[in-house]
Amino acid sequence: MKFSIKRSVFIQNLVDVQRAISSRSTIPVLTGVKISAHEEGLTLTGSDATISIEAFIPLADDNNQLKIENQGAIVLPSRFFGEIVKKLPSDTMYFEVKPNLQTEIRSENAEFTLNGTNADEYPRLPEINNEKSFSIPSELFSQLINHTIISVSQQETRPIFTGIHFTIGNGKMKAVSTDSHRLSQRIVPLSATENQDEISVTIPGRSLNELIRIIDSQQDIEMMLTDNQVLFKSGNIYVYSRLLEGQYPDTDRLLPHQHTTSLTIAANEFTAAVERALILSHEGKNNVVKLAIEPERVMLSGQSAEIGNVEEELNIVKATGDALNISFNPDYLKAALRTFASQDVVINFQSPGHPFIILPADHEDDFKMVQLITPIRTPGV
Amino acid sequence: MKFSIKRSVFIQNLVDVQRAISSRSTIPVLTGVKISAHEEGLTLTGSDATISIEAFIPLADDNNQLKIENQGAIVLPSRFFGEIVKKLPSDTMYFEVKPNLQTEIRSENAEFTLNGTNADEYPRLPEINNEKSFSIPSELFSQLINHTIISVSQQETRPIFTGIHFTIGNGKMKAVSTDSHRLSQRIVPLSATENQDEISVTIPGRSLNELIRIIDSQQDIEMMLTDNQVLFKSGNIYVYSRLLEGQYPDTDRLLPHQHTTSLTIAANEFTAAVERALILSHEGKNNVVKLAIEPERVMLSGQSAEIGNVEEELNIVKATGDALNISFNPDYLKAALRTFASQDVVINFQSPGHPFIILPADHEDDFKMVQLITPIRTPGV
Repeated sequence: MKFSIKRSVFIQNLVDVQRAISSRSTIPVLTGVKISAHEEGLTLTGSDATISIEAFIPLADDNNQLKIENQGAIVLPSRFFGEIVKKLPSDTMYFEVKPNLQTEIRSENAEFTLNGTNADEYPRLPEINNEKSFSIPSELFSQLINHTIISVSQQETRPIFTGIHFTIGNGKMKAVSTDSHRLSQRIVPLSATENQDEISVTIPGRSLNELIRIIDSQQDIEMMLTDNQVLFKSGNIYVYSRLLEGQYPDTDRLLPHQHTTSLTIAANEFTAAVERALILSHEGKNNVVKLAIEPERVMLSGQSAEIGNVEEELNIVKATGDALNISFNPDYLKAALRTFASQDVVINFQSPGHPFIILPADHEDDFKMVQLITPIRTPGV
Repeated sequence: MKFSIKRSVFIQNLVDVQRAISSRSTIPVLTGVKISAHEEGLTLTGSDATISIEAFIPLADDNNQLKIENQGAIVLPSRFFGEIVKKLPSDTMYFEVKPNLQTEIRSENAEFTLNGTNADEYPRLPEINNEKSFSIPSELFSQLINHTIISVSQQETRPIFTGIHFTIGNGKMKAVSTDSHRLSQRIVPLSATENQDEISVTIPGRSLNELIRIIDSQQDIEMMLTDNQVLFKSGNIYVYSRLLEGQYPDTDRLLPHQHTTSLTIAANEFTAAVERALILSHEGKNNVVKLAIEPERVMLSGQSAEIGNVEEELNIVKATGDALNISFNPDYLKAALRTFASQDVVINFQSPGHPFIILPADHEDDFKMVQLITPIRTPGV
């Protein structure tokens, strides 16, 4: 195996596939990156048990300055190989695997030799056919993930909640996540699935998080499904992920359609106030911030017995309904508000003990974009 | 105590004095920042046992938008106060100490109340008169510190080596540091001291490190000395530091004036090669890189038995003298070379067992700018 390539192109692709590689993997070969040179170009692969990322660098694209002298494949230690490639002196790098798997990486006068691993030891990626496949505008898909990734559970105790649940069909794609303290939902149109029955899958949050960092925003993303795998294609990058097994609960019944109190406020202004309040609540025993909605004003407050307290009257657009005192985790509210950027949002409350929901002010009825947060019961409320 | 001020001006000064404050200080009042409002303006103070930083914000400067309604002083928890001030909603902040030391910080609708500490509990800064005082161009002083700070010892076992040793007088200032593995020396002219006897002091490296981060590069820095304290004035910032006690060893005798082998090379090119070599040496049992100087070429190499090795022929400007194989800690060489930026440097060697020195190629004889590194004896060398 022997090739030369424009180093900046190689680095860009290497960094993408390295997103899948964990240096703490218990399977030694997966701490490496696989490099294979074949008839059509170069393929880089990184993987852990959950996600695999493949980048293809075509021979046909002159910008890559790719010249393959001998085909073949090798696995190299990912972290060192990455550091080395990034520090090489010039923008052309030469790569050659010697008979005993010793791999030479050269650029100008610098010559590295790395101990490689036989590529036959590297697991094969799943074969995925075209049967169930959808094309989605990448910008819309990123929005959908960014809106729902915040409520994915970090606890492995109920694995199904570590993923985002997708329902695809009837002309739309619905994404839901919940960690049992909060819930996020986003529904986007997907015209290609108009005549198709609904399919449901749950995809690990970690896979989707890596995916949206590397997708090409200029191109549509293609999503292909099998019973236990999903493949996303974005330009020359392929992201494979296993699906989470198990039944995702019916979350529609959790979303309240009634309310007794409603606030309209600019999401970014509320975010800034919450960020001020949590400076002190983070130091308290409980990380709790209070909202007091009264006819004449709406006050946000946080405190720490040792340090002090903060109080702020919110600039609201509109408030309707009953007076209400409610307490909640400010980190949850901050994350939820940020998904709305600087939009005006409507926040609908029922009581100090019931979950409240945040909706975009210009689309509050269709529940296409919802954040739900369960309040915290505090003494005296 | 009551004032209002332009928040961005206040933050800039607060960040400077916070450099002296350690949240882990064993003296509780020193985890706070002292704020005092007086006839001439506002003074902020931060301190630990070694270094104190004072920032003065004059009433007279209209840009500060400072209005003092009541004079007074208070100590507030540094970290929280800093976070709060940075997150306030507008560029005007109002500050008021209530009778029970409760301190109100207001900006637009946000109102924080922090528990303050009586300013009488805050230690007094030393009084320093004008007796021994020198003015130094700040750019030159920064260069001098940056050149020598790298060899300051991080070990508290011999406290005198945790400082930079200054000898001032006879028209020059000489700075020396050593951690016993390496040594840095820089001499700069200081015309104001031409008719003055030599004074010697050792200033903690940590104090100088903070100092060069906050000095105003537009103005000269004034250095004032007492028996156990130094004060640096840079614009409206005052940095006080205690001096290190004890005799600094005579380092002149450590600098070799003979050599058997000499290399001339661009410092930045050598730095880049060393950075490549240390990717692998950092993984080896000993962090060692080898330099092999032969008549026809100069090779730098590093290795890790597990990962692989690297070899690079250096682009040298000139090599004279005997062939030589020498090994050293690449982190020391990298730090030393970086003090020369992209200058050509001369590196003078005596033997694989003797320290070698790095000098600027255009000023190699006067020893005004020296880095010395002790090599590492490796088996087979």
